[in-house]
Amino acid sequence: MSLDTVLAKIDTDLDASLDRLMGLLRLQSVSTDPAYKDEVDKAADWLVDDLKSLGVDASKRETLMHPMVVGHVGDTGPHLLFYGHYDVQPVDPVELWDHDPFAPFIEDRDGKKVIRGRGTSDDKGQLMTFMEACRAWIAVNGELPCKITFLFEGEEETGSPSLVPFMQANADELKADLALICDTGMVAPGVPSIASQLRGMLKDEFTLHGPAMDLHSGHYGGPAVNPLREISRIIASFHDDQGRVTINGFYDDVIEIGDNLIAQWKTCGFDEAEYMTGAGLTTSAGEKGYSILEQQWSRPTLEINGLWGGYQGAGSKTVIPADAHCKITCRLVGDMDPDKLRIALRKHVENQLRPDTTVTWDNDLEGAPASVMNTDRPEFELARQALSDEWNREAVFVGMGGSIPIAGHFKSVLDMDAMLIGFASEDDRIHSPNEKYDVEAFHKGMRSWARVLDALT
Amino acid sequence: MSLDTVLAKIDTDLDASLDRLMGLLRLQSVSTDPAYKDEVDKAADWLVDDLKSLGVDASKRETLMHPMVVGHVGDTGPHLLFYGHYDVQPVDPVELWDHDPFAPFIEDRDGKKVIRGRGTSDDKGQLMTFMEACRAWIAVNGELPCKITFLFEGEEETGSPSLVPFMQANADELKADLALICDTGMVAPGVPSIASQLRGMLKDEFTLHGPAMDLHSGHYGGPAVNPLREISRIIASFHDDQGRVTINGFYDDVIEIGDNLIAQWKTCGFDEAEYMTGAGLTTSAGEKGYSILEQQWSRPTLEINGLWGGYQGAGSKTVIPADAHCKITCRLVGDMDPDKLRIALRKHVENQLRPDTTVTWDNDLEGAPASVMNTDRPEFELARQALSDEWNREAVFVGMGGSIPIAGHFKSVLDMDAMLIGFASEDDRIHSPNEKYDVEAFHKGMRSWARVLDALT
Repeated sequence: MSLDTVLAKIDTDLDASLDRLMGLLRLQSVSTDPAYKDEVDKAADWLVDDLKSLGVDASKRETLMHPMVVGHVGDTGPHLLFYGHYDVQPVDPVELWDHDPFAPFIEDRDGKKVIRGRGTSDDKGQLMTFMEACRAWIAVNGELPCKITFLFEGEEETGSPSLVPFMQANADELKADLALICDTGMVAPGVPSIASQLRGMLKDEFTLHGPAMDLHSGHYGGPAVNPLREISRIIASFHDDQGRVTINGFYDDVIEIGDNLIAQWKTCGFDEAEYMTGAGLTTSAGEKGYSILEQQWSRPTLEINGLWGGYQGAGSKTVIPADAHCKITCRLVGDMDPDKLRIALRKHVENQLRPDTTVTWDNDLEGAPASVMNTDRPEFELARQALSDEWNREAVFVGMGGSIPIAGHFKSVLDMDAMLIGFASEDDRIHSPNEKYDVEAFHKGMRSWARVLDALT
Repeated sequence: MSLDTVLAKIDTDLDASLDRLMGLLRLQSVSTDPAYKDEVDKAADWLVDDLKSLGVDASKRETLMHPMVVGHVGDTGPHLLFYGHYDVQPVDPVELWDHDPFAPFIEDRDGKKVIRGRGTSDDKGQLMTFMEACRAWIAVNGELPCKITFLFEGEEETGSPSLVPFMQANADELKADLALICDTGMVAPGVPSIASQLRGMLKDEFTLHGPAMDLHSGHYGGPAVNPLREISRIIASFHDDQGRVTINGFYDDVIEIGDNLIAQWKTCGFDEAEYMTGAGLTTSAGEKGYSILEQQWSRPTLEINGLWGGYQGAGSKTVIPADAHCKITCRLVGDMDPDKLRIALRKHVENQLRPDTTVTWDNDLEGAPASVMNTDRPEFELARQALSDEWNREAVFVGMGGSIPIAGHFKSVLDMDAMLIGFASEDDRIHSPNEKYDVEAFHKGMRSWARVLDALT
């Protein structure tokens, strides 16, 4: 009875819930850019206030970069920790947005309502599905059904540098029976999904140095080494013509997934053609011999995320630049060790260097291994049933191409399992211009959390 | 007899010549910056007045940007055209200057006198060597030895947009027997040099398009084509491991220079080690089998001048960008045809494209073939002898790695050969802070022109 009333309350209050979400979306909490530091801080304050309005004992907790928001409520039943992040990706190239990224609005798009703006899907909209589910629950029942700790991070998009130290320093306070993470999506439209394996990540960046200064390409073109040409050659050497990474030992600790899982994935509703079409693509450029889903979920990658050097303005400048720059991320699977791979990656680059070139590395970029969830825990089946009930479709355990290191940190620092449930869609354009979140995802997301809370308690 | 008197007059009047040069140097004729438009105009007026003081029929001629200064004098003997430019490079970063760039002064530098200030070497000091040689000649002989047309440009540092239209509109007025251009340097200290070949240039730029939008490298890393990886592969394909350009037909119209010229260049005084050290380099990265001088003067190149795509900010962004960009210049030699090569370059790139990638080209970038001076004309040997006499050292015909399109324009628009003689030094810091011109270059430059005028008439 009580669950139905909570669900009805969520339906009734949808507009008010959306209004609250808009308030959070307007705050420009870009965590990677120091210019937005005050806005990140404001978003933390906003969340503290919002938690307090739910009767949660909430506070902003300073770190060396951006604050954490922590809240506690209740003292009976299982102890759940809910994690979300309130920081967002940069908006550049801002000229590709059809509207102000921080002036969110509801758009009617072929009869489907979507919320437009930076952070709508990643992750403010998702975070608020849980908050608003709690709000409805409290409105109906006066209190939540169990002890809940809220942990909201402001550094997720910048690699979470403070997260592990913060967990370590506050382990007793944060340790719960299970962590719930809402930063993932649905494998196909209308297919509720629990992520059971996530790829890890290794980030690295190097600068290739050549001549002592920028040179004139007439006066020095020919004899002088050109860092742009050299960095291109090095990048081209990272893959063979089968799409495999050529770094020594790269695949040593990859674990081939079993036929059982492959069979499950084949029927999970993931539409390969739609996935490719959604990015304007027709043909997989990935590792030969693996399906698109395997390439995305269970195979490692090396991607160049940024590359630059020389003149980028209008017209031409006859320069041979002194330096060239490259940002890299590798996605890791199985037992791949980011520290070991960092050494192998760097050695690969250094082995390619020609005379008069040197390389320097950014030593501030982190890595995290892949995560495999403990789906044997009974909560996973309970949550799966709750999601199936809400969406009228069997919920599925899926892999994920992305990296959510937080799941690994909960395990390694707090010895706490995590369950990842989220309602984002393939076409949400997260990290891109014109990001959106479906109003349906937000609405049914709130309802899903109410059902999961009910099922777990 | 008369030449010796002119040379003596130049020696006697050196201080007065320097004073006049200082007057021109004080005018802040930065042509690329609209804020200096009045100063550019003042410099043109200054030159008109200076030419008139020589009895030249001189006038300022408006263009769409900065004025030309044209003067005519004499009506007998061969008809020479003298070209120089009175505009200068911007001075920024101004904080790197040890003094006001537009308050020129003579500095004693380890016993060698140098003139400090913007434009001292490029090109006001060089332009004035010819003017002051004419002044001394007139003072001694009452008139110049031949018909001379002066053409001073105020847009050289901004790409000479008005030059070709002005030549076309005033072809009859400007056409002479031979153009003298004073905007080059000496191949080594004290070695008088006539530039006999300049490399041409082809500029091009492309954007490689991949996915329809920026993608998340977790979500799409693997299946999605990455334009940064693709552009690197394409750039890496431009050269083989011998440093040769692999574009089909690239070398077809290169003319191998003769053993005679190679022998001359070997003894021209060019110091390969010093040239490399000056750029912080030890080892030539150029085409195997050719000397550094040949790589710079007589071999074509393909250089990447700009390369960019993806995220360039601090930290990391897990993006697979939709696009990547590349700026290219090729230096051309012999009969290489920029239009033909542009087609071959573009075809090379298009042949490399993998599925789901396309390329678009910037169609606003120009090209110009190499210039080989007509050194068979008797004036070249006469001038070489005159320069040898002045410098007590055999003058040499040298190549130049850079492109001076003006020489090509004189040929193509006015069907007029050009001879490039200049007295700048490698260490003059043109285009950089603390530009200088040696007083000896100025002094012996004036004397050189007096000798050349004498030899050619």
